[in-house]
Amino acid sequence: MATTVDDERLDAMFAALADRTRRDIVNRLSRGEATVTELAAPYAMSLQAVSQHIQVLERCGLVSRGRHRQSRPCRLEPAALEAAVSWIEASRRAWTERMDRLEGHLQRLQEENPT
Amino acid sequence: MATTVDDERLDAMFAALADRTRRDIVNRLSRGEATVTELAAPYAMSLQAVSQHIQVLERCGLVSRGRHRQSRPCRLEPAALEAAVSWIEASRRAWTERMDRLEGHLQRLQEENPT
Repeated sequence: MATTVDDERLDAMFAALADRTRRDIVNRLSRGEATVTELAAPYAMSLQAVSQHIQVLERCGLVSRGRHRQSRPCRLEPAALEAAVSWIEASRRAWTERMDRLEGHLQRLQEENPT
Repeated sequence: MATTVDDERLDAMFAALADRTRRDIVNRLSRGEATVTELAAPYAMSLQAVSQHIQVLERCGLVSRGRHRQSRPCRLEPAALEAAVSWIEASRRAWTERMDRLEGHLQRLQEENPT
């Protein structure tokens, strides 16, 4: 099976979210733009380490950087989360539909064979 | 900041979903139980490699194995996806609320300073 662009995007998105610090940064940015220095403040890690986390979030499209101000503030791109949510919801929907069908089938069996 | 059980669960869940084969397996299981042999059939990889993917899905709680039949069929545990969806939705909600507040603020500014 060929790997599609969607597969690559989902790989990158879920891998980006599989880290507590990166999820923290996403949470912080959901409340407003912030510079790398501001984002790094709560952590006992180097500015460079925080920058690397932000680059991972940029590569999967979750975060973008301002181009015009020297501080290049980071902002959340929440539309990018849509792909992840859609994938999860599709799996849950398929499962729920199957459960509904099974339930309907059991009900018909009981109606056809009342005890 | 201390790492919580929830953080560990989300790390494991998102890391499990960051692989195309594992997402395929979740999709397959959303349509019904399957044995490891059945799950491995579409892939050009060893049964052992597929088993390892399934173990990753078991460790994060997404998949459970039957105990009573020798084939130990795999089943999806869709409730486990709830944690991942909740986390994503919380981030999107915070962002949307912030946008709504900004919009309200702009509207008030325009009303106070009509052109």
